[in-house]
Amino acid sequence: MPNYKNIAIVGVGLIGGSIGLALRQRRLAAEIVGVGRRQESLDRAIACGVIGSATTDLAAGVATADVVIVATPVASVVDDVFRVLAAAPVGALVTDVGSTKASICHSISEKQAISEKQAVPLQQAGSGQQLDTSGFVGSHPLAGDHRSGPEHARGDLLEGKVVIVTPTSSTPSQTVARAQAFWETLGAQVLQMPPEKHDQALATTSHLPHLVASALAALTPPEWLPLAAGGWADTTRVAAADPLLWAQIFAQNTPAVIGALDRLIEQLQTARSSLLAEDRPEIENFLRQAKRTRDALGN
Amino acid sequence: MPNYKNIAIVGVGLIGGSIGLALRQRRLAAEIVGVGRRQESLDRAIACGVIGSATTDLAAGVATADVVIVATPVASVVDDVFRVLAAAPVGALVTDVGSTKASICHSISEKQAISEKQAVPLQQAGSGQQLDTSGFVGSHPLAGDHRSGPEHARGDLLEGKVVIVTPTSSTPSQTVARAQAFWETLGAQVLQMPPEKHDQALATTSHLPHLVASALAALTPPEWLPLAAGGWADTTRVAAADPLLWAQIFAQNTPAVIGALDRLIEQLQTARSSLLAEDRPEIENFLRQAKRTRDALGN
Repeated sequence: MPNYKNIAIVGVGLIGGSIGLALRQRRLAAEIVGVGRRQESLDRAIACGVIGSATTDLAAGVATADVVIVATPVASVVDDVFRVLAAAPVGALVTDVGSTKASICHSISEKQAISEKQAVPLQQAGSGQQLDTSGFVGSHPLAGDHRSGPEHARGDLLEGKVVIVTPTSSTPSQTVARAQAFWETLGAQVLQMPPEKHDQALATTSHLPHLVASALAALTPPEWLPLAAGGWADTTRVAAADPLLWAQIFAQNTPAVIGALDRLIEQLQTARSSLLAEDRPEIENFLRQAKRTRDALGN
Repeated sequence: MPNYKNIAIVGVGLIGGSIGLALRQRRLAAEIVGVGRRQESLDRAIACGVIGSATTDLAAGVATADVVIVATPVASVVDDVFRVLAAAPVGALVTDVGSTKASICHSISEKQAISEKQAVPLQQAGSGQQLDTSGFVGSHPLAGDHRSGPEHARGDLLEGKVVIVTPTSSTPSQTVARAQAFWETLGAQVLQMPPEKHDQALATTSHLPHLVASALAALTPPEWLPLAAGGWADTTRVAAADPLLWAQIFAQNTPAVIGALDRLIEQLQTARSSLLAEDRPEIENFLRQAKRTRDALGN
């Protein structure tokens, strides 16, 4: 007997699709409904076998869900979560998969709609202030790919991966426990931390690598690509990801990303001075320290 | 019938070992002799099946070679090539696999021994000035791994990869043609360019990625590693390579590496300004340009 009756996935791209596929392969849900804006994307997701049925009507799609996963781009998450909370059954677990968490989680727990430039109280934005947000907690699966779309979905994408769950002070512990259980049934390992701590760390462990990979790719003259070996290919790989998604991620974590970037520039300036001074012991020290940290991660 | 009678490989690590293995698997040489400084490393290389026999006596190891591959760290290449040229048969093809080329190739064609800080005419360094360097041309296979040692050798390491051959103005075209034929029998595609042009391009396509990967790894607090996803892992992968080898590479291409590093820092400063100004169109443009270049490489 499946663990869940009905799971709705709002946004059936690579991550949403991989969650659907994992649920189907493990027979964890009796019904898996995809919700999207374009029928054509939903048709592709059904054809890929990552969801069972689909609708462009969000309210209808989540009406009988016991779990709703919002897997839309970070700039859309808050709005989508509010629409889900207004339409889903009382007691449904609602979570997202966004790469930033502070702005999303605080907007939701404080019932602030997000416009591009400023937060607006939800009642002014036209939604009810009675909205019960206690069923929501933010999540961030540390899994993905520079490719997008349900065609690249993999049922094992989350297996053995970390999912960070980010309760705020107002999140009921029961909601956190249910989110944890959900991710664990998909084979993930769950870490809990406050949204701000998540954003601070991820600025260095995810957003900065993306920025650096893009800078390296952007400054390389295309005519030198035949001279690019494995090092360039690895170091720039994530620069192939969707520019619009990443511009949104940077916009939601700007101060922390700038802080991480400043530490990197400082590190590079120090290395530059050592190179210029031909200070071999210092360069070796720097490379050794880097190797120690990289080796600690494994492959 | 094998293409070559006797091939000597000086330095049987990952690259030297992979060349040996490729030659053996393709039955291209009747004899493959490994030359190294430590008997223990040579024993491991024989045990791995990457060479047929081995010696710590360089002169004896290359005495009957028709081809000698010097696959030692870049700081040792010039000295090793001179020792090979003094001991190998007249007419032997000698090449190296170093990641930098200008310093190596010009020292050899001008018969300058290299000490750490300055070039010394070879006759002062104790070797003969009559040394015939016409059998030597520099090579750089764009293939490798952040791991080292003959245990990680792969017979297909060079298949489909680019090998850059870097003649100077004094390199006989026959020597270039023989080096090209050698690499092509191992399945590689050969590009020819002057050593300076190689070093200029590789500063951006190889040395800079290494420096950046190391900076990113070095500034990441180890306690955040559980929060590192695929992007961090890819972007820092080459930081696991041997610090001593890479300190030598940087030392042999310092001005070009600093030039490339300055362009990167400028690129990062520009991105920082766009982030700070919340200039979304500019950030999207930057990420799109990066993606275009990265996509042009393929996977």
